[in-house]
Amino acid sequence: MHNAVLPSKVRLVEVGPRDGLQNEPVFVPAAHKIAFVNRLADAGHSTIEVTAFVTTKYLPQMADAAEVCAGITRKAGVRYTALIPNLVGLSRARDAGVDEVAIFPAATEAFSRRNLNQTVEEALATVADVCREARSSGLPVRAYLSTSFGCPFEGPVAPSRVRDLTARLIDAGIYEVALSDTIGVAHPRLVLDVLEQVTSRVPLTSLALHFHDTRGTALVNVYTGLQAGITRFDASAGGLGGCPYAPGATGNLATEDLVYLLDGLGIESGVQLDRLIEASRPLEPLVGHPLPSRVFRAAQATANQR
Amino acid sequence: MHNAVLPSKVRLVEVGPRDGLQNEPVFVPAAHKIAFVNRLADAGHSTIEVTAFVTTKYLPQMADAAEVCAGITRKAGVRYTALIPNLVGLSRARDAGVDEVAIFPAATEAFSRRNLNQTVEEALATVADVCREARSSGLPVRAYLSTSFGCPFEGPVAPSRVRDLTARLIDAGIYEVALSDTIGVAHPRLVLDVLEQVTSRVPLTSLALHFHDTRGTALVNVYTGLQAGITRFDASAGGLGGCPYAPGATGNLATEDLVYLLDGLGIESGVQLDRLIEASRPLEPLVGHPLPSRVFRAAQATANQR
Repeated sequence: MHNAVLPSKVRLVEVGPRDGLQNEPVFVPAAHKIAFVNRLADAGHSTIEVTAFVTTKYLPQMADAAEVCAGITRKAGVRYTALIPNLVGLSRARDAGVDEVAIFPAATEAFSRRNLNQTVEEALATVADVCREARSSGLPVRAYLSTSFGCPFEGPVAPSRVRDLTARLIDAGIYEVALSDTIGVAHPRLVLDVLEQVTSRVPLTSLALHFHDTRGTALVNVYTGLQAGITRFDASAGGLGGCPYAPGATGNLATEDLVYLLDGLGIESGVQLDRLIEASRPLEPLVGHPLPSRVFRAAQATANQR
Repeated sequence: MHNAVLPSKVRLVEVGPRDGLQNEPVFVPAAHKIAFVNRLADAGHSTIEVTAFVTTKYLPQMADAAEVCAGITRKAGVRYTALIPNLVGLSRARDAGVDEVAIFPAATEAFSRRNLNQTVEEALATVADVCREARSSGLPVRAYLSTSFGCPFEGPVAPSRVRDLTARLIDAGIYEVALSDTIGVAHPRLVLDVLEQVTSRVPLTSLALHFHDTRGTALVNVYTGLQAGITRFDASAGGLGGCPYAPGATGNLATEDLVYLLDGLGIESGVQLDRLIEASRPLEPLVGHPLPSRVFRAAQATANQR
């Protein structure tokens, strides 16, 4: 009954300091963010999305982006990345010395307009501009394709649309597209439908999966991705970014839960679960609610029983 | 990329009124339990574990077992079951008119002694006695095999041991063994290891899977079971029985989360998700904490935004 097709090794992208903290209702001071990023690197992460260079008006949680980048203790072999919306963000991220940038077009018009104030076509033009400019400085560009599995405004999204947009992103110079389940509605059949479409045009190795655990399906979706040969997954330490008891919570897949699964499957991620839990722990009092990661909670419960 | 081996239909065993409520720190009055069971039947459940006939000293939450059984509005086609530890429990359950009983031996000595005050062999002798006696009244007997995937006292459990015990339970007259992850440590590889061993001796159709979501792996374990051909799964409405923020929480897989997965996969369960959510909702104020089901929480968030 063993599943022979699972990969032996995966690469995780830790998005807690960015996707996690940007969706918490509090501002975490730069010194704490810096210490968090350093702990995540010490836990074995090889790619950490540190912050976002976006308009402070829209994302006050990331107002200290440059300060955070400047404060990190750079660890050899770790890629420190940042989210950017456009050429202005690229310029700021480059000045801050990041190793890679990530841009975030959407698969649906309604979401693109609300999130970026751009049509999908306008956003693709921005992606092309950013890729051209980044190439001249040797910076790799990753893209999140938001609403790849469903849109809060438009509902279901045709997998063929995700296929076409992903192919255009790769053509524009994106090295990896993270198919993103922004609202946490994906399930294994939808994951397979999307991957079947997208891999008809784009190699598996150019794809990552980015799940939110809104409906508890993030891990089973990862497992579906693993069975399909995907080896890159995004996750957020502690499950930061979504308090399950907050209205509209759409928390990221918790890295602890993902690493517990991968460890069980014997798949190497490079991340040490016990150190990862320690990396998240100091964040709990800062964000003001219990971290939603189930593995984190189970570890806390065990610690409390001692 | 479609997975052709998934079953088209499954049978769920709703354990919220028993396994859920017995693990909540409050006593829910009988009238509320009765209304809950009736709502679960109306949501489409065909098997509902209603209560437990155990010593009140050990399980005060179930002290009203007979009252609950007497108060239910019996719906045609629904099997109302109860947990029992021994012949005394069987006798009480029979008097209360249940359609089926479930007994709960364990795979490990330490857990058996703590949970049943019996060795594993003594518990197996009790199972044999109960099966003999139940047969004479035409009552089917199900068994949970606790600690099938790990023990809080002994740690890992050899799948060969689970195989041997499951085979002996079937030989004793148990019609279905629910392999139970009491402490929520299972992951897909362990599920496959256990199923590979057990199905070498026992037909797939005699097996159910009973997962707790302590580490967030319950759904991916179900999916692994589905891929292996298992068609019977236990779950607890709302995820009752485990508050993720309580120390030592080992909540059941939430039925809402399971049904969301099954609906996505196109697998028929007979349960209507929207009615199931309504069935759980009145329990939230009674247990005194938010229900941990992610799908329930997402539905609440959507409702709050309206």
